[in-house]
Amino acid sequence: MQELSFGQYSLVYNAFSFTFATMAAATLFLWFGRSQVGHAYKTALTISGLVCAIAAYHYFRIFESWQSAYDIKNGVVVASGYAFNDAYRYVDWLLTVPLLLIELILVMRLSAEETVSKATKLGAAAALMIVLGYPGEIATDIPTRILWGTLSAIPFVYIMWQLFAGLGASINSQPESVRELVKKARLLTFASWGFYPIVYMIPYTSLSGSNVIVGVQVGYTIADVIAKAGVGILIYMIATRKSQVEYGDPAHA
Amino acid sequence: MQELSFGQYSLVYNAFSFTFATMAAATLFLWFGRSQVGHAYKTALTISGLVCAIAAYHYFRIFESWQSAYDIKNGVVVASGYAFNDAYRYVDWLLTVPLLLIELILVMRLSAEETVSKATKLGAAAALMIVLGYPGEIATDIPTRILWGTLSAIPFVYIMWQLFAGLGASINSQPESVRELVKKARLLTFASWGFYPIVYMIPYTSLSGSNVIVGVQVGYTIADVIAKAGVGILIYMIATRKSQVEYGDPAHA
Repeated sequence: MQELSFGQYSLVYNAFSFTFATMAAATLFLWFGRSQVGHAYKTALTISGLVCAIAAYHYFRIFESWQSAYDIKNGVVVASGYAFNDAYRYVDWLLTVPLLLIELILVMRLSAEETVSKATKLGAAAALMIVLGYPGEIATDIPTRILWGTLSAIPFVYIMWQLFAGLGASINSQPESVRELVKKARLLTFASWGFYPIVYMIPYTSLSGSNVIVGVQVGYTIADVIAKAGVGILIYMIATRKSQVEYGDPAHA
Repeated sequence: MQELSFGQYSLVYNAFSFTFATMAAATLFLWFGRSQVGHAYKTALTISGLVCAIAAYHYFRIFESWQSAYDIKNGVVVASGYAFNDAYRYVDWLLTVPLLLIELILVMRLSAEETVSKATKLGAAAALMIVLGYPGEIATDIPTRILWGTLSAIPFVYIMWQLFAGLGASINSQPESVRELVKKARLLTFASWGFYPIVYMIPYTSLSGSNVIVGVQVGYTIADVIAKAGVGILIYMIATRKSQVEYGDPAHA
């Protein structure tokens, strides 16, 4: 394991603790919000909260794994011999990334058939994307990382194409007061998801050693906060506004 | 205890962590769903959630037992001398397998007498199936494993016969919009349950040593996720659709 400075170790440590707190707080916010939206939007908030809850669990585990991977004594960081478990992220994404797409579809309130068909297609593509990325993440050589990263990019491009082309018509049928918000949620999903491949490619760059470790850990952490808590808040805003339009305010629920 | 490679150890470790997170998330999803279905379907969701909650508890214990059964230092996995507790699975199944059949019966909303009679018969057969399987699971020789496995197959066949022949008429009396979903739930129950005897028979095959351990642990884990969380989601979908048909939307509850 690469040598880390105390500052580098602490930066990652504190980023993990921050993210655990953020995800847990977002979970509760979204679940409390269930009682403030109309019937049709409760499941979207349940699932947005679940995404943050699952992430909170994994950040708690990641935090503990990071702690046990290093011994710190008198400001010197030494690998403890226990491996840092990178797989937690992929296990998390395997569950949360399909759910993130499902929450976006649910808040649009499409017909039952369209909801099931889009959720199935996008959910499956998302799971495939994660599964294909993992062998590259744990690869020790760059060509293997590039191979799996490129394969994983195929479902990624498909999802983005579906979000922009496939959901375009449905977005235009949303009430006017939320159309811009739905577009923002889609854009934030696109922007935060676009961050993951960039982090994935850090080891390709001229950065080396401990800088790669810190860059990858902090990078994925920022992307997770935006993609899960950030998008969750937008889903909440869309659900409240649509409830006002469709159920009246405050006589809904 | 057999020697495991670090990759094998990690695969099982991460599969257990994944399953804990999945079961806990499914529990909350199903319990939140209680407020979104009609009166008659609340118990089905309560019990579906309980099945996942009990499984989450046991996967947490299994995860910890797995961790304590091995010492890992510098990528080398050595048995710690503490036995991995396989009995957690059977304790879990003794509780959850009868409940899984009961949730399937409850969501069909049969008459009170039929519900009690079918739940008692199927629940008792399920408990018997688990009790008979356990002596084979912990047996150190193959003939003993085969003997108890075969005895356990008798209630298994009875349950499957009941699900297909006995519940056939009741399924045809379900509202048309959910008939296919109920059949899917039954099929998923059949397919995921059929997976357990296959995993049980892994030690009969030419696989040996650590491959058997990994195959059995990962195999049971996949089967549990499908049989509990997967079937639970279908129960939720059936309950919501039937609520719409029978209570109207959204004036139920």
